[in-house]
Amino acid sequence: MADTSVRNGARPLARPASGRAPDPAARALCVAVIGLGAMGLPMARRLASALPVSVFDVDRARRALAAGTGVVGAGSITPAETPADAVRTADVAVLAVRDQTQADEALFGPDGVTTTMRPGAVVLFTSTVGPDVVRAAAARLAEHDLLIVDAPVSGGPARAGDGDLLIVAGAGEAALALARPVLDLLASTLTVVGPNPGDGQALKAINQLLAGVHIAAAAEAVALARGLGLDPRTVIDSLSRGAAGSFMLSDRGPRMVQAYEEEGAEVRSRLDIFVKDMGIVTGIAGAAHVPVPLAAAAEQLYLMGERAGLAAQDDSSIVTVLSPLQTSKESR
Amino acid sequence: MADTSVRNGARPLARPASGRAPDPAARALCVAVIGLGAMGLPMARRLASALPVSVFDVDRARRALAAGTGVVGAGSITPAETPADAVRTADVAVLAVRDQTQADEALFGPDGVTTTMRPGAVVLFTSTVGPDVVRAAAARLAEHDLLIVDAPVSGGPARAGDGDLLIVAGAGEAALALARPVLDLLASTLTVVGPNPGDGQALKAINQLLAGVHIAAAAEAVALARGLGLDPRTVIDSLSRGAAGSFMLSDRGPRMVQAYEEEGAEVRSRLDIFVKDMGIVTGIAGAAHVPVPLAAAAEQLYLMGERAGLAAQDDSSIVTVLSPLQTSKESR
Repeated sequence: MADTSVRNGARPLARPASGRAPDPAARALCVAVIGLGAMGLPMARRLASALPVSVFDVDRARRALAAGTGVVGAGSITPAETPADAVRTADVAVLAVRDQTQADEALFGPDGVTTTMRPGAVVLFTSTVGPDVVRAAAARLAEHDLLIVDAPVSGGPARAGDGDLLIVAGAGEAALALARPVLDLLASTLTVVGPNPGDGQALKAINQLLAGVHIAAAAEAVALARGLGLDPRTVIDSLSRGAAGSFMLSDRGPRMVQAYEEEGAEVRSRLDIFVKDMGIVTGIAGAAHVPVPLAAAAEQLYLMGERAGLAAQDDSSIVTVLSPLQTSKESR
Repeated sequence: MADTSVRNGARPLARPASGRAPDPAARALCVAVIGLGAMGLPMARRLASALPVSVFDVDRARRALAAGTGVVGAGSITPAETPADAVRTADVAVLAVRDQTQADEALFGPDGVTTTMRPGAVVLFTSTVGPDVVRAAAARLAEHDLLIVDAPVSGGPARAGDGDLLIVAGAGEAALALARPVLDLLASTLTVVGPNPGDGQALKAINQLLAGVHIAAAAEAVALARGLGLDPRTVIDSLSRGAAGSFMLSDRGPRMVQAYEEEGAEVRSRLDIFVKDMGIVTGIAGAAHVPVPLAAAAEQLYLMGERAGLAAQDDSSIVTVLSPLQTSKESR
């Protein structure tokens, strides 16, 4: 596993509008974005600031939303009726769907990418689906002479739109070279894990294990602070500087405290993403015969959050499963 | 809960030897240290750099070890045969025992602190025992006109010797004022949680919840990296900068990787401390009716580590419960 992290400077969205000419290599590429959800739409917009982009989503409204974007710069967004149409002239197809089922349909369905995409082109797989799904997709794409870059992304919608994502990639050299201008437009930090599709997913899964457990731990800390009559905000401030500190305690902790002060806080990262991702974590850990008792407990907690109606809420709302909004004073 | 964190500059051990006169207020104090374990001994030495210190431990060898220290400066270390003897002339008794049983014996036993200590003196309770134990001790000490500062410490033996501990204190003003020179000698960061004994323990328990869960999460990450055939060191390096980062991933993660490369790594923090502390966490959370499923899973993991013979090993060795040293290659 080679770590070739590259920290790009954070770049403005409308780079070409600043007067600089876009990279000629990037200009030559045609890109398709399949899936215009929370991540796909801002990624398409980001790419369209420099490249011609065709887009597809099963939801016609999302396609119209993407095409209606007033894009400044060299690129443009053209909606397509099917994945097959979207990739007809594309060199790189960015796949930004939710899960394996959507990926299989988009790639291998009757109107899928593999029916029209030119041999030698690249599918950039940005979803988090686990190593096995990507390895299977890589094998099937190879039958159509298509390459793959396993490139799960982290960072959320706002950073997607700013080209400020963290991407961990597993891919061979040829695929990586072709997709590089697209990766450079999307990522501020790109870690090439190694030459094998699936290795990016493996590293991303470990990232999600830690992130998901740390959010749950922060929730337990906030809930326990409330239960013991301490001010949770002061607890977070005191502890985040020391041995108890984590990115998630500093980031999600204050949002958890807000959950008790404000109705309907801003959703920056949906809770049900962790239902999916902790399922991937425990699945691949089980397949590798590695016990992960804390990840398993966190998975159950996110499932409880989903059952409690929090699926589309910010993931910080998980704290309310441990320390409910309404009964907090009585339960102290 | 008032946060009055004070960040002292890190100060050299032999401050009085540097030529500066010691603080007159500090000079006036007599201090006793009860319990000369991994934390008590370096704390006694640190205090003896500025103050006269009497010491007691149930183990005669530890008393001799403390008294034999070549101390430079204004202070000295005098061993005593009982806690009662140690505190006979003391203004502040620093209690640095392992658990509630030892604390009760040292304070309230037939040769305990309460049999001889002068009314108005202060017991500085540095052990992590949970809020209820300290509240009960405070009530019994009050019957003897003794004050208490609830001041659980974090940072480990090396930082104890350097006066670089983190201390979270719950205490009334009078007790705090009397103990302040001792706290200032021991702590680089002092957070006064509030006026009530037990509040320091509550905050320390939340600290241990997070620290204990984060160590276990780092262990799962390292174990899963090995199981998936990734280089755990590269995984830690890649992920500790981002949303998966924690103090413990950066601190214990590399030590976990070392566990597979070196025999008998240095013990900086014993594993069985987390058996005790996660027991306190789940105990007080249960009493407060707050679910803490991840802390509970972590407690079970540390118990498994203890049963596997790792009690006196560094807590980073918990990773070997998830991914054994010997069978690691086969179990991939």
